This record gives sequence, C-alpha cells and structure tokens, in this order.
Amino acid sequence: MVELDRSLICKGCWSQMHMPIPIRGPLSLPFKLVGITTSKMNPNICTICERAFARVKKTKQITVQTTILFADIRGYTRLSERVGAAEVASLLSVFHDECATAIWAQDGIVNKAMGDGLMAIFNFPIPIDDHPREALVAALSIQEQCTRNLAKLKDELELTGSEIGVGVGLHSGEVAIGEFSGFATDFTAIGSVVNQAARLESSAAAGEILMTEEVYRHARDLCGAAEHRSISIKGFSDAVDVFALRN
Amino acid sequence: MVELDRSLICKGCWSQMHMPIPIRGPLSLPFKLVGITTSKMNPNICTICERAFARVKKTKQITVQTTILFADIRGYTRLSERVGAAEVASLLSVFHDECATAIWAQDGIVNKAMGDGLMAIFNFPIPIDDHPREALVAALSIQEQCTRNLAKLKDELELTGSEIGVGVGLHSGEVAIGEFSGFATDFTAIGSVVNQAARLESSAAAGEILMTEEVYRHARDLCGAAEHRSISIKGFSDAVDVFALRN
Repeated sequence: MVELDRSLICKGCWSQMHMPIPIRGPLSLPFKLVGITTSKMNPNICTICERAFARVKKTKQITVQTTILFADIRGYTRLSERVGAAEVASLLSVFHDECATAIWAQDGIVNKAMGDGLMAIFNFPIPIDDHPREALVAALSIQEQCTRNLAKLKDELELTGSEIGVGVGLHSGEVAIGEFSGFATDFTAIGSVVNQAARLESSAAAGEILMTEEVYRHARDLCGAAEHRSISIKGFSDAVDVFALRN
Repeated sequence: MVELDRSLICKGCWSQMHMPIPIRGPLSLPFKLVGITTSKMNPNICTICERAFARVKKTKQITVQTTILFADIRGYTRLSERVGAAEVASLLSVFHDECATAIWAQDGIVNKAMGDGLMAIFNFPIPIDDHPREALVAALSIQEQCTRNLAKLKDELELTGSEIGVGVGLHSGEVAIGEFSGFATDFTAIGSVVNQAARLESSAAAGEILMTEEVYRHARDLCGAAEHRSISIKGFSDAVDVFALRN
C-alpha cells in the first residue's frame, strides 16, 4: 500500500486562502477543540474545506478545471444477493480503502461515496499541475490494488462463480463546484463533465478504465495498450470517443 | 412546506443510548464547542449519531428492520447538457430541499446524497412504529412538492421540451447498518433490501413511486390507484412484484 505523505497544515485552506490551518501536531489541538479536524474526503484537508465552501469562497459556486473519476464494483448487486452482510462489508471496505489510498496519493479527494460507488475530484481544493494525468495514475493504482485484493478476498471468503472487478470512468474539463442544497453543507461538483464521467464508469467492464480524449492526451505514455472506441451513452445525443485500458 | 418539529435533544442518541444530548437552546452550547452539532442527515439527530456509529454501538455492524427510499431526477443528464450550471444548481437545490423536508417530517434520515439522487433510511437511528407507511408518506410528499416546484422552476427558467420529474423506489426489510470503510466515518445501510430499492428507483418513470409488497401492505389506503406489475431488475434473477403509484 502507498504511504500517504501527511501534511501538518490543511493543503486546501493553504491553496485556496493562503491560510495555515494546523491539522496535525500540537498546534492542531485548539483547532480540534472547536471541531476543525481532518476531512473524510482527504486527510490532508480540513473540515473548513469540506463544510464551509460558501463562507470561504464568499460565493455559491465557482467554475474550476478538474478531472472527475467515478469507480464502482461490477456485479455487486448479484454478489450481495448470494453472500452475507459480513462478506459484503469486507468487500466494500477493501474497495473504499484501496480507492481512497490511490486517490489521496495523487492529492485528489473522495467527494462522494455511496454503496459500491464513489466520485473523486482532482484539482480542487488542492491544486494539481497535470490533473488528468494524476487522475489516471490513481485509476491505474485502483485497478491494480483492487484486482489483487479482491481476488485474495474472494479466495478467503470462498466465493465462486461471479467475477468481482472494478469499473472506472474519467473525464476532464470545467465543472461547477459549490453547495447545491440548503441542508447538506458538503461541496460537490456538477455539470456535463461529471455526468459524462459517471456514464463512462457505468459502461466500463470489470477491470476496465474508460477515459475521454481530454484525459488520454495527457497520459499517452501510461496508456500503451489503450483501445479507441466510439460509444453512445445515455443522456448524450452524440457518440463519445473513449479510450479503454484493461487491467 | 411542512414545518419540522425541532427537538431540543438528539432523538438518535436518546433512542439508541437513552442519553440526552442537547442540540438546541443554551444547554447545547458546550456541546457545540466540542464539535457536537446537528447532523446534516436529519436536524433532530447529532454528529455523534452521524460519525461515531462504531463507538456508540460497540460493534462494526448491526441488523435493523428499515424502509429504504431512493429518489432521483429523471432526465437530469439530458437536461444538464442543455442548460447552464446555475440552472442545474437551482434544480438540484429544489430537489434536495423538498426531499429532505419530506423525509425529516416522518423522522427519516437523508443518509447519502450524490448528484441528482439520494438515499433515505427510515427506522434508524430514530425508531418509527410503522416505517414502511411513514416512508410512503414521505415519498408521496416528495412527488407532490417536487412536481409543483419543478414545474414552477421550469417556467421561470423557460426550459422547454424535456420533462423534469422525480422517480422514487421503496423497499422494506432487514439491512446491515455500520461503517463500511476505514476512512469514511458516516454510517450507511447495505444489503439486498438497499439494492432492490435502488433498482426500483431506476425503473420508476418521472412522477412515479415504485414499491414492493413489503411496503404496499402497510399503506393500502394511501395507494388507491396503485398498479400491480411484475418487473425484472438488473442483478436479481427472479422477477419482482411491484406496486406503482403515479402522481
């Protein structure tokens, strides 16, 4: 497992506001007392980044160039019909932990996690020079680690029959970031780029990464065996050019 | 809009541990200072319920009878290809706020929200006598409020062509509740009942509520015009009997 570099100050607050908010070490104690701790989205950002977007940014939404990654477990529903809750829990735990580790190692954040799926954002709130490339590095690491650890788990739990694998979708471009409801105070990203990344993930087979041209052109050297396809996706009128990488 | 009854103590901690945790009024101030505030899942529970499941329950997961509700916006992807981020943000805001209000009014919690969708749990951590019925009451209220407010918004934003509506799926039964990853400290529910509710929502048309027999039999009197169907859903080998209510 990749060892995460643990920052003493919040990388998000530093990048977005040039404000040093201690999140580790003795200086972080008074902050912890008033509820400012590390964020569950990324342990190098703090709960100010996570829950005070509108107050920090002084606006409801901003436009940012990002890369969006979606990942989920293929065959999850079918599998969880056949095995017990404890086995499903182990499977989810391996998946979520491996994904988070890979995403955090490239300074991305796990923005949303729901059941057997998650959505990550690269380039906000921590700036990343070449975010499409870093997101693909994370996707490759997710596939490598999940393939290995899910196969090990499958043996341990003596699951036979169905294949367990992960599907990943990646797209890069302009998104709107903000808080999009009155009650939930976590920020998120919306827009066409987000929807398209989600649809690519739904189209990805077990062990597959599907990415758009916008991601591919930043990381050709990592995509030796990528296959070029044109696919039609739900909700989009035109066919989309994608590049597929198999593990 | 339904006015929510605002509790002075956390209804979750009271039900689960018989511990009175003040969340409103002067007694709540010292708790707020150490980061214990109202939860974003439901304003009548606190962040102890939300983020300290394993510590409170002293176990990784528990089995609970619940009703699970999924809701999302039909045609969201297609619509967000045609309109700007500000319009999409208004749409999401109306949707999430109306859903939360309806769910909270019946003591349910908004456990997960992701893009144009959400998942609610009824009967944990706040116990509800007849949770399938209360969940259906919430679903009916979601459909009524969303239909009215989304139509109003559609006129204001001068959106023409595509229909905007909400699809809802409901199923009731035993789920596993716990924290299913090392990093995310919010609890969630997993299991076949959750997957089936999610699949029913995907199969629901705009303005439709799809529920299983397990929900229907608790609320026949609310389902005057329900249509009985047998549908096949992804990941489940057998066809599922459902009852459909149109707005």
